Formats: sequence, C-alpha cells, structure tokens
Amino acid sequence: MKLYHCAGARSFRPLWALEELGLDYELEVMPFPPRFARPGYLEVNPLGTVPAFTDGDLLMTESSAICHYLGTAHGPSDLVVGAGEADYGRYLNFLHMSDATLTFPQTIHLRYTVLEPEERRLPQAAADYAQWFASRLRGALKLMGPDYACAGRFTMADIAVGYAVLLANAIGLAAAVPPAAQDYFARVSDRDGFRRAIAKESGR
Amino acid sequence: MKLYHCAGARSFRPLWALEELGLDYELEVMPFPPRFARPGYLEVNPLGTVPAFTDGDLLMTESSAICHYLGTAHGPSDLVVGAGEADYGRYLNFLHMSDATLTFPQTIHLRYTVLEPEERRLPQAAADYAQWFASRLRGALKLMGPDYACAGRFTMADIAVGYAVLLANAIGLAAAVPPAAQDYFARVSDRDGFRRAIAKESGR
Repeated sequence: MKLYHCAGARSFRPLWALEELGLDYELEVMPFPPRFARPGYLEVNPLGTVPAFTDGDLLMTESSAICHYLGTAHGPSDLVVGAGEADYGRYLNFLHMSDATLTFPQTIHLRYTVLEPEERRLPQAAADYAQWFASRLRGALKLMGPDYACAGRFTMADIAVGYAVLLANAIGLAAAVPPAAQDYFARVSDRDGFRRAIAKESGR
Repeated sequence: MKLYHCAGARSFRPLWALEELGLDYELEVMPFPPRFARPGYLEVNPLGTVPAFTDGDLLMTESSAICHYLGTAHGPSDLVVGAGEADYGRYLNFLHMSDATLTFPQTIHLRYTVLEPEERRLPQAAADYAQWFASRLRGALKLMGPDYACAGRFTMADIAVGYAVLLANAIGLAAAVPPAAQDYFARVSDRDGFRRAIAKESGR
C-alpha cells in the first residue's frame, strides 16, 4: 500500500487511519499542488487531487472512503462501525459529511484567501464559505455523541470529522470552530496514532 | 422511513435508490431552500441541507451515504458492492467522489450564477468551479468501467455519479460533460427505478 500525501492536506485522514491500524505502507510526501509540482502525478491519480492511495491494482482518491476501506479490507477493526451496529447509519453519514459538507467549503476559503494570486482572490466567496462551514459544523455537533461522533467510541468517523477541525485551525477558520468542537478535537487527537501520523508527515 | 426532498436536489440520489430497491417510504417534496421555505426544517435536520432521511430514530443527511445504507441495512442487494468483492474499494471511492468531488463544485456554480441575488453573483467563482467540475469528471471517467462505474454492473455508485451528470445538464453545465459521460448517464438512467423516481418527484 502506498499513500501520496501533502502536509496538512486531507490525505492526513488516511495517514492517521493507517497509523491507528498499525499497517505497513509506503508514504510519499509531495509538494502542493502535486498535479503541477510532482512530475507524473496525473498518471498516479487522473483527478490530480490529494490523496492518492494504492493497494495493489486499486486506486482510491477520497480521504474518508480510504479510512473506511482500510478498516474493513485490512480489518476487522473496532474503528469501523459494522452494518449490524445501531449507529451504522450515523457512522456512514459522518464519514460522508466530513468531506462533502465540512472540508469542501474549507477548501474554497483557502483557495480565495491564500492559494490564488492576489488579483484572483474573492473575499466574498471566502467569507460565504467560512460562514457555510461554521454553520454546518454547528449542525454536525448537534448530531454527534457526547464524546465521539457516534457509536460511543473512537472510530474512523472521528478521524474524518476531527481532521476538519484540524484544518480549520490551520487555515484561519478557528473562529468558526465552537469551543465544544475544539474540546472534541483535543479528545480525539490525544492518541498515539495521531502523534505517529504527525511525526510521519514531518519525516520523523 | 421518510425522505425530505427538493425537486432536482441531490436528495434525488436516495429517491432513486428507494425506488430501485422497491422499499416503502414516505416522501415530502419541499420548496427550496427548505431551511427558509419549509417551517420546522431545522428541527428535522439541524444542518439545514437537503436531503434529510429518517429511519426510526436515525437521521441521515448525506445523499450518497443514504444510498449505501439503504442497500445494506434494508438489503441485501446487488446494488451494493460488498467488502468481499474485488471492486469494493473502487465502489466506496465513487460513492464519496460523487458528492465531495463532483457535486459540491456544481453547487458553487449554481449559487453564484442563479441562487444569489444579482449583486452577489461571482462569475469568476462560477467559472472556476465549472472548470473544476469538468476536470474532475474527465478524471472520474478514466477510473470508471466501460459500462458502469465499477463491478461490471449497475450499483449505488451509478446512482451517485449518474446524478452528478443529471445535475450538470440541469444547471447549465452540460458543456462540461463529455459525450462519454452523457452516454454513461443515458445507460444508467434507462431503468424503471429511475423513471419511477422521476414520477414520484413530480407527484405522479
């Protein structure tokens, strides 16, 4: 298995999952954006997005999907909520919500405040999607359990949603993160798997 | 089970899945956007997004996650690719990609060309994400099988990805859809389940 990662990018989700599961894998940390900065990346991942993850002939490109895949195909693991468990539907929902509802608006904010050259920045779009993210994160908190997203234990859903809080703090959206979400992130990231992933990312 | 739907919105994915599976459910077709136009909607779905889907005490809000949930919790169904099948990882990836990588950029285009009042429209953001969608859809086509997204048969991944093509054609993004993707959509939508979902949406 090989994970193509950029520091801070959503590929941190599968990196964290790989470390939680203690699996063997190769890690390539690339400059951002790799579709321009890493020769040959479009041959690895035709979408040009981060992450790319390969497992034999399989290519996956969606960060939260890879976490769930790892816990099932390379499990079993109690980081996955199984179809027979009461919170199975909530677990699937948080996995999808983490990226489609929380992280995509974060990337729009990042694009129009930092990534674009100054003449192409759009303060209105950046503000619109900062507000969108803040509102959806508050909604997500209402659906989460008291300690973890679901199932009363740490799961892949916490890696997926927790990363959205980590990213918010990194890209100037900390004001959009309510104290309850900061407490949640402190709780789910206080783990050896998280610390190992942070160390791997920085080449330690 | 109850599905809260707006005509044309991504709640069409679970509507289509419910009809494919032949399940009993209640459908509420709401005016858009329901967080302003349908009193009490935020009590149903604190995120305010569409869809909302309830199954007993369970609330789900992510369109592609609901499709997979329906095929497992109310299956078994060959519309789901199981963990024991060769294309399991590709199937999960298309489910997530459909919304996080394809439909979210479509909604940005729609917002800044149609939904916002004229003085808040942003032609640059609309064009940026039209291009983003077109590029990612071309990439997705390279990862898909010859007839279906994966597994050599019609699955929930085709409902999820097919809807992104349907939406593109509906919101002025048809030029971003290559002929191969139009052929794909024609193929996966030529089904009684699709036609029943269209009929349900229009109250027939």
